[in-house]
Amino acid sequence: MKPGLNWYRYFLVVCLLTNFVYMFAQQTPPDIKSPQLNADRSVIFRFLDPGAQKVTVNVEGAKPLEMTKDAQGVWSATTAALEPEIYGYNFNADGVNLIDPNNTQIKTNLLNLSNMVLVPGTPPQPWEVQDIPHGDVHHHFYHSGIVGDNRDYYVYTPPNYDPKAKTKYPVLYLLHGYSDGADGWTAVGKANYILDALIAQGKAKPMIVVMPLGYGAPEILKYGWQIREHPDLMQKNFDNFRTMLVSELMPRVEKEYRISTKRTDHAIAGLSMGGSESLLTGLNNVDKFAWIGAFSSGGLSESFDKDFPSLDPKANQQIKLLWIACGTEDYLIELNRKLKAWLKTKNVNFTDRETPGMHTWMVWRANLIELAPQLFR
Amino acid sequence: MKPGLNWYRYFLVVCLLTNFVYMFAQQTPPDIKSPQLNADRSVIFRFLDPGAQKVTVNVEGAKPLEMTKDAQGVWSATTAALEPEIYGYNFNADGVNLIDPNNTQIKTNLLNLSNMVLVPGTPPQPWEVQDIPHGDVHHHFYHSGIVGDNRDYYVYTPPNYDPKAKTKYPVLYLLHGYSDGADGWTAVGKANYILDALIAQGKAKPMIVVMPLGYGAPEILKYGWQIREHPDLMQKNFDNFRTMLVSELMPRVEKEYRISTKRTDHAIAGLSMGGSESLLTGLNNVDKFAWIGAFSSGGLSESFDKDFPSLDPKANQQIKLLWIACGTEDYLIELNRKLKAWLKTKNVNFTDRETPGMHTWMVWRANLIELAPQLFR
Repeated sequence: MKPGLNWYRYFLVVCLLTNFVYMFAQQTPPDIKSPQLNADRSVIFRFLDPGAQKVTVNVEGAKPLEMTKDAQGVWSATTAALEPEIYGYNFNADGVNLIDPNNTQIKTNLLNLSNMVLVPGTPPQPWEVQDIPHGDVHHHFYHSGIVGDNRDYYVYTPPNYDPKAKTKYPVLYLLHGYSDGADGWTAVGKANYILDALIAQGKAKPMIVVMPLGYGAPEILKYGWQIREHPDLMQKNFDNFRTMLVSELMPRVEKEYRISTKRTDHAIAGLSMGGSESLLTGLNNVDKFAWIGAFSSGGLSESFDKDFPSLDPKANQQIKLLWIACGTEDYLIELNRKLKAWLKTKNVNFTDRETPGMHTWMVWRANLIELAPQLFR
Repeated sequence: MKPGLNWYRYFLVVCLLTNFVYMFAQQTPPDIKSPQLNADRSVIFRFLDPGAQKVTVNVEGAKPLEMTKDAQGVWSATTAALEPEIYGYNFNADGVNLIDPNNTQIKTNLLNLSNMVLVPGTPPQPWEVQDIPHGDVHHHFYHSGIVGDNRDYYVYTPPNYDPKAKTKYPVLYLLHGYSDGADGWTAVGKANYILDALIAQGKAKPMIVVMPLGYGAPEILKYGWQIREHPDLMQKNFDNFRTMLVSELMPRVEKEYRISTKRTDHAIAGLSMGGSESLLTGLNNVDKFAWIGAFSSGGLSESFDKDFPSLDPKANQQIKLLWIACGTEDYLIELNRKLKAWLKTKNVNFTDRETPGMHTWMVWRANLIELAPQLFR
């Protein structure tokens, strides 16, 4: 029997084909690579969201970049050729900030999650993993009697660190910003790789870097970015941090590590909230710190006479370096300029460092790369 | 002049009001708390996605939970009361896996990103942060001559670790699974907190735990979960890992830490790929390891005679414990049962441990809690 072609056979074939196409489409979701680095150092970002109306990729330090959708619902955008850097970014789909689910590199933070992408340089930048001698990063946990919480801190020891070394090591206390965790300077700031590179090049002295959790009043995090409306709590946060660092953490790490107890071997530096903490702790304890670095300092009350009650020109004999840096596009540039103007009225010497840039880790990594070689000279 | 109400005035008012409502809605996106822990240990998950048709929350070890959308476009779902645990999860919106952008707790992984939520217990579970003496976690970086890459490893030293102790410490080499980074056992497995708790309770002996990067051929990660189709590469991965661990990393950490070189002070254990690595490394080097733990082992070729060519009943004199564990709902349970059947034919003694559970970190944390107290006795 050889049946003729009739309408219901056509219909059946069409149904089967449709089903096949549908099943195939279901079984093979588009294979998404994001981010994708191109040879010219441009980056392609991709994000699957067939239902979205508008998607942008927001790269740290740049304007939102509009993405376009293909037939499969994959949004993509290609940046211009980028400088070698580590860029934070996230997606925004119809007003909602989202994480790139295809990139396992996360820019850790206690308030705002985002991704990271490294655009490598030739030769490698100091924050890249290189085949050079590496220091170790030690993660410590303890109960703070002063703050009243279980907390952590990180300690970097330089390559070939010798716990029995005849000459004790100088120490840099390196402080993160508001919203960062104690891992901010390692996980995002890459301070350990930066120090490895600077030490390998003979640019920085081998030093120990102590990276504490920077909150004297950790409850401030509950207020998120509305914390500016709670100046009393911010003050408590600064005060308790200073007490914790000086009376609790410094004796602790000086016992655990081969750290010099000489004030000329003590530096303190930090970014944003940590910049202010470096100033408040350093300038109010010049008997303990000779090197002070403040990057994009924020959260200071601007009542500088109250913040630094005993600061006078005698400090110039004790302070080896007071290094005040800020990006010129940073919203905190005015606060920093006010502080510098006030220091001038007090006849306290400082190095004024304004660089291009916003309130970003690009600026702070560059700050560390510039400051570390100047320390302990 | 008192103009009467006419149509265009009504129209203007409606326009203004509409604009106001629209602006207000734009300026105050819903304040989303996710995840939210309830007193009964249920958890509310929330996700803003006004345009999505269907959203589920996929919690580790449970079926996808359908979420419902409110008028503002916020999807939510509440779990049943949960056991105290750390749960991995992500959202799925119209077929796309997404990260909870309101939860900064990330379950780190080299292939699959997801979030974590801790449901605390009373009293605290061993993996929770407690006010007890804590060991330190040391992060090391080096160039592996055997694998040919720049890589890292973590070392846990117990509370009050003394680098000059008269009696050297026993050591556990603890291996992560396929897709994990070297931080898997600390960031997700919480091995350091677990050891702290077991040591504080006097249940486990103070020991050093070395957590290496578990890839002998890191290029396998390029194949993602299709790696099963590349048995030769998996074999290279296992072989190189074993060589790297025994000939490169063990001498290295024995130099860096106060680690006993006696085989009866050496344990090796791991999960999934790391379970197989523990078996392949341990059972083929009984001169170096006396304690072997395998959790949910995966990736073995099933040619056991080839994998363990020299294993015979004489090993029973050298092996203090061969502990083979797997969850009964794990897709690898059959492979593990085949291995145990084969060990019986070889008259090699082992402890058979099957527990409820799937291929999840819940099982592996429980495995470590059960195994660690048995070691070095």
